[in-house]
Amino acid sequence: MTDKGNNLDRWYDSYAERTSGLAASEVRALFAVASRPEVVSLAGGMPFVSALPRELIQGAIDRTMEQSGPVALQYGSGQGYPRLREHILEVMALEGIRASVDDIVVTTGSQHALELVAKIFLDPGDVVLAEAPSYVTALVVFKSFQAEVDHVETDEFGLIPESLREHIARLKVAGKRIKFLYTVPTFGNPSGITMTWERRLEVLEIARSNDILVLEDNPYGLLYFDGPPPHAMRSVEEDGVIYLGTFSKTLAPGFRVGWALAPHAIREKLILANEAAVLSPSSFTQMIISEYLSTADWRGQIDTFRGVYRERRDAMLQALGDYLPDLSWTVPNGGFYVWLKLPNNVDSKSMLPRAVTELVAYTPGNYMRLAFCYPTPDFIREGIRRLSTVINGEIELLSTFSQTAPLPIAKPQIGIASPPANLG
Amino acid sequence: MTDKGNNLDRWYDSYAERTSGLAASEVRALFAVASRPEVVSLAGGMPFVSALPRELIQGAIDRTMEQSGPVALQYGSGQGYPRLREHILEVMALEGIRASVDDIVVTTGSQHALELVAKIFLDPGDVVLAEAPSYVTALVVFKSFQAEVDHVETDEFGLIPESLREHIARLKVAGKRIKFLYTVPTFGNPSGITMTWERRLEVLEIARSNDILVLEDNPYGLLYFDGPPPHAMRSVEEDGVIYLGTFSKTLAPGFRVGWALAPHAIREKLILANEAAVLSPSSFTQMIISEYLSTADWRGQIDTFRGVYRERRDAMLQALGDYLPDLSWTVPNGGFYVWLKLPNNVDSKSMLPRAVTELVAYTPGNYMRLAFCYPTPDFIREGIRRLSTVINGEIELLSTFSQTAPLPIAKPQIGIASPPANLG
Repeated sequence: MTDKGNNLDRWYDSYAERTSGLAASEVRALFAVASRPEVVSLAGGMPFVSALPRELIQGAIDRTMEQSGPVALQYGSGQGYPRLREHILEVMALEGIRASVDDIVVTTGSQHALELVAKIFLDPGDVVLAEAPSYVTALVVFKSFQAEVDHVETDEFGLIPESLREHIARLKVAGKRIKFLYTVPTFGNPSGITMTWERRLEVLEIARSNDILVLEDNPYGLLYFDGPPPHAMRSVEEDGVIYLGTFSKTLAPGFRVGWALAPHAIREKLILANEAAVLSPSSFTQMIISEYLSTADWRGQIDTFRGVYRERRDAMLQALGDYLPDLSWTVPNGGFYVWLKLPNNVDSKSMLPRAVTELVAYTPGNYMRLAFCYPTPDFIREGIRRLSTVINGEIELLSTFSQTAPLPIAKPQIGIASPPANLG
Repeated sequence: MTDKGNNLDRWYDSYAERTSGLAASEVRALFAVASRPEVVSLAGGMPFVSALPRELIQGAIDRTMEQSGPVALQYGSGQGYPRLREHILEVMALEGIRASVDDIVVTTGSQHALELVAKIFLDPGDVVLAEAPSYVTALVVFKSFQAEVDHVETDEFGLIPESLREHIARLKVAGKRIKFLYTVPTFGNPSGITMTWERRLEVLEIARSNDILVLEDNPYGLLYFDGPPPHAMRSVEEDGVIYLGTFSKTLAPGFRVGWALAPHAIREKLILANEAAVLSPSSFTQMIISEYLSTADWRGQIDTFRGVYRERRDAMLQALGDYLPDLSWTVPNGGFYVWLKLPNNVDSKSMLPRAVTELVAYTPGNYMRLAFCYPTPDFIREGIRRLSTVINGEIELLSTFSQTAPLPIAKPQIGIASPPANLG
C-alpha cells in the first residue's frame, strides 16, 4: 500500500475489488428532493405503516419491557429468538410451508439475509441467475460479492422455463459456476408479476436436475388482492430452496426483522455469518414482534393491509386508464408495484428531473416501476395525472425533434413479454 | 456446479472460499450448558442492563411511538437517523473527538461496522495488523473476507511501536498489502490493557508514515474506574483513523446500534455497503436511543455503570488474590475483562468442561479471559473460588503425571509482556 491515493481520497487504492460494485444510485440525490411533501412519490416501496393498530403495538412493547426487559435489552442468539421462530413457522404455514424452527435464521430485515446468502456462496466470477427484471438492491448485493448476474427472460406467467434451460446450458458450456437462481415469484419487484404454479414446478425441476439452488425471496406473498397466489416454491422443495421472508411489509420495516429458511447445512453457515456480521439480531425488536404475534389478530391486520393496498392498486389502474390510455402496464394481484411500459425512445431516467419538477416521482428503467403502496388513492390519481403530463410532453417533444413520423405507441395489454433486464 | 456435494450437505461444493473462514466456535456448545443459572459465567461480555433506569427507557419508547410512530416504524436512511448522529457527536466529545455529523454512519451494533469496513477494504490475501491478543470476533470477520491477520506484540502499555515497525517492514519486504491496523486501545478485549497516550501518538505516527489506516474500536472507553483514560486516537488524527463506537456497553446491546466515524470518502463507501447489507439500520431503536439521550441524564447513567463495574472488578481482583495468589493477572482501569495468566502447560481449553462441572465458565485461551461485567460481586467471588479449585486440581494432576518437578508458577505481576496472539 505505497500508493498515496488520489487527491480526493487518500485511501482510494486501498479499497477491495468488490467495492467498485457498490456504486451510488444515480437517482439517490433526486429522491432526496422527491421526499418533499408536495411531491407524489410513486417511487419507494414504503409500506403504509399508519394502517397499523398503534395501541396493539404499544401494548406489545409495554409487555415486552415489563415481562422481559433485561432479556430484550441484552445480546441474543445469532440464530434469533426461539419463540419468534415458532411464530415465523405459523406465518409461513399460510403459504404452504412446513419446516422446523431449527432451520430458521432471523436476520436484520430480509435484505440482510440476501447479504448473508451472497457472502457464503459467491466467489468472484460466479454466476447468479436472476429473473428479468429483478429487485435492484438484490443485484447490488450479488455484484458487491463480484458475481455476474445473468438475466433470464420472463413473461406474464413468470420465469420462462425454456429460457432458463438455455441460459444454464450456455453458462455450463462457457465453464461458468452457477451458484443460485434468484426470484421473487409472487408479486415481483418491480414487475408485479406472479409465477404460476405450473411454472414453479417446472422451474424447480430444472433447478433440481441441474443442481442449482433456488433463492426464493417472498416479501409480498401475503399481500394479495384477488385471492391467494400459488403456494411458495419452498412448499414443494425443501433441500434445494432458501426461502426469505420479512416482517417489513406485513408489519413494519422500522424493526428490521426478516428471516431465511434454509436447508440444514446452509442454515448453519448462515448463523455463523450472521454472528460475524452483527453478533445477534436485535432482541428488543424480535421480542416485540413475537409478543405482537402472540396477542394481536395479526391475520386480521394483514387483511386490513390487503384492503388498503387493493384500493390503491385500483386507483392506480383507473388513473392509468384515464390519463395514459395508449400505454400498457401490468395488473398485479398483490404486492406494491405496477409496471408501466413506456413508448420506444422515451428515456424514463432522463425524464425524471422533469417529473420531479411536476411534483411526481417514480423508479426509472426501460419500463417504469410505479409503487402504489404509500400514497392515498387521491394522491395516486393526482400523481398519475402529473405523470401523464410529463410522459405526453416527452412524447410530443420526441415527435417534434425527430424527422420521422410520431413514435409508435404500444397497444394496451395485460402482462408483458420478455421485459428488459435492467430496471435501473 | 456439477459436483453433488457430500452426503451431509448437498451444497458442500457451492460455498464461497471465504466461508471456510467461518468456523463454528469450538466452545459454543459448552457455553449453552454454561448459561444455566447455577453456573457462574465469567465468560460472556454481557453488560449488566438491569442497572438501567427502566422507567426512563420506557419513557423514551413511549414518546417515540407517540410523537413519531409512523417514522419509527418506517425504513430510514442508510447513513442513520440525523438527530441520533448529533447525539453521537456529544458522546464522542467526551473522548476528545471533534467531527461532523456527515461523517458518522450508524450501524447494527459496532460489530456490523467491523463487517462493513472489512467488506470495503479486504481482498483475499490482504493483511490486517492486529494487537495480540485481539477481540476474537473481529478476527473472525477479517478472516471471513480471506485476509491474513498479523499479530503485533503488546505489553502493559499497549502496542509496542518497535514491534509494529518490524512487522510492517517484514510484510512490505514480503510484498504484502497491509490494509489497516486493528486495535482496541482502551480497556482492551480480552486483555483489559490500555494503550498509553505516548504510545498512541507513536503508533499513529508509524501508521501515517507507512500509509496504513488505523481501525480504532472503542466500545469500553467511557467505562473507566480510576479516572478517564487517554483520549481516543481519532482525537488527534482525522484522515487516517476509522473510529468505531457503540451503545451496547453504555446503554443496551438489545437495540443493536453502533457507529463508524470515517474519513469522508470512506464514509461514502460505508453508507453504500450499509444500504446493500440492511437497507437502513432500525429507525425504531435509533429513535428510542436518540429520545433517551435527549431526555435522560445519560452521563449520570454511565457513571452508575462505572460504579457497578468498578465494584465487580474489585471483587474479582480481591478473590484472585485470595484464591489464586501464585498466578498473575492484569489490573484493568475500566471495561469488562481481567486477563489471567495460567501456569505453563495448563490448557484452559481442555480444562473448560471440568470448570463447567464445577459450575464456573470463562473464555479459554493460553491466557484466560475473565469477564466481571455481568455477575454480582458475591457470585464473582464464588466463581473465582470454583475456578481456583479447577486450576489447582489441574496443576496437581499435571505434577502427579509428569515425572518432573512441580510446574513453575509465574510470579504475581501487574501487566503482561508479549501476550500470545490467539485467545481462542
